[in-house]
Amino acid sequence: MELTNQLKKYIRSLNQVKYRQKYDKFTVEGPKVCAEFLSANYFNINYILALEDWVYTQDRVLLKQRCNNLITVKQKELQSLSNLKQANQVIIVCDKAAPSAVIDSSIGWKLYLDEIKDPGNMGTIIRIADWYGIREVYLSEDTVDPYNPKVIQAAMGSHNRVAMTRILTTQLKNVDLPKYGLTLAGKPMGKETSLEPGLIVIGNESRGIRKELISQLDVELCIPRKGGAESLNAAVATGIACQLLT
Amino acid sequence: MELTNQLKKYIRSLNQVKYRQKYDKFTVEGPKVCAEFLSANYFNINYILALEDWVYTQDRVLLKQRCNNLITVKQKELQSLSNLKQANQVIIVCDKAAPSAVIDSSIGWKLYLDEIKDPGNMGTIIRIADWYGIREVYLSEDTVDPYNPKVIQAAMGSHNRVAMTRILTTQLKNVDLPKYGLTLAGKPMGKETSLEPGLIVIGNESRGIRKELISQLDVELCIPRKGGAESLNAAVATGIACQLLT
Repeated sequence: MELTNQLKKYIRSLNQVKYRQKYDKFTVEGPKVCAEFLSANYFNINYILALEDWVYTQDRVLLKQRCNNLITVKQKELQSLSNLKQANQVIIVCDKAAPSAVIDSSIGWKLYLDEIKDPGNMGTIIRIADWYGIREVYLSEDTVDPYNPKVIQAAMGSHNRVAMTRILTTQLKNVDLPKYGLTLAGKPMGKETSLEPGLIVIGNESRGIRKELISQLDVELCIPRKGGAESLNAAVATGIACQLLT
Repeated sequence: MELTNQLKKYIRSLNQVKYRQKYDKFTVEGPKVCAEFLSANYFNINYILALEDWVYTQDRVLLKQRCNNLITVKQKELQSLSNLKQANQVIIVCDKAAPSAVIDSSIGWKLYLDEIKDPGNMGTIIRIADWYGIREVYLSEDTVDPYNPKVIQAAMGSHNRVAMTRILTTQLKNVDLPKYGLTLAGKPMGKETSLEPGLIVIGNESRGIRKELISQLDVELCIPRKGGAESLNAAVATGIACQLLT
């Protein structure tokens, strides 16, 4: 198969959220993250665009199983498609997985992201969820697109194990799970904290959890502060909450 | 005072590590982070370059106390000096504080960063140290410059409360503190972990802690994994370690 101008244009368009939505596709870059998507067998792969050197090092049987459209490209062509300052050997184009339509209320911890804006934070949070075995992350309507290339990069393959679903903030009240959230007025979390599994609400990087959601929380918690910083980064706070609660 | 071409060139040069080292200065951007540097009274401030609108909202007495060289600039001029995609109202130029020359072995937790490369991670780690009341962070020779503009941005003012000193990895053996580090083979940290205060060694984003340093650790620890992710982000792991240990 050949890299036509039309295909180039299509792949580049997936760097924009509106085309990721239109086509229901997204791209993944770099050998490390692509390896996760190839081996996980979770997302359908439409195209693999890669340098000859990368193809040479791969398991060709796996590549064929996972994708019919392997296109060998030159560095310059790859760069013209890439989101990275320095294109990194391989780009794959995947189908978005069908998002689960309803909240799964079965046992287990889940996250709700309330307007997480920074793609790096978002990806790091998905990776944290994956580390702690959290299989479902719900996103407010104004949280960044989970298929944004920077989210994919920071999550390092965890998209293959963590389902993501949009839930309007107005609909969160219908979710039948205990709801916990980090707030300034919360009860200090500590080594003895032990709570029934539920939904951990993660607030926006600047304003924290929005007022309408704070009033829906069953328990407000906080990470005790010992020093001078005004706050912790949203992803760091998520990691600490997952460690102490799950 | 006026923004001469020479001064412009000088300020722009501070975006590069070699000139930050040559002049022993660094820059801080944006109203939120600059406010921390102005009020903390920790770093000497050489210049303030700001839009008229920003100056108008400030405590003029404080500005005069903190700096003799306030220069009002237009948005276009500010942008020409800025590291940000969108210059944000104010840039200040500070003297680097004199780094403490020797390890302070008094009670209290400290961090050692072993080749942290990403400025965002580095800044987030400084902010974590500040949150947990850790006043000293030591840096290996190959850790990113703590005065890198992206580090300053991510640390959100915590530079004013956390001292940073380079310690060669070969010299770490002379530091008379218990040494802890996160490794794959470590003992799982948990709610019951209770250790004498010491130095927490934070490993590089890709390779973790270098071999020569692992052999010097008094205790190897790990964050227990429950799911599929291969690792946690370095700053997130630092946050969890600080929460569980300090």
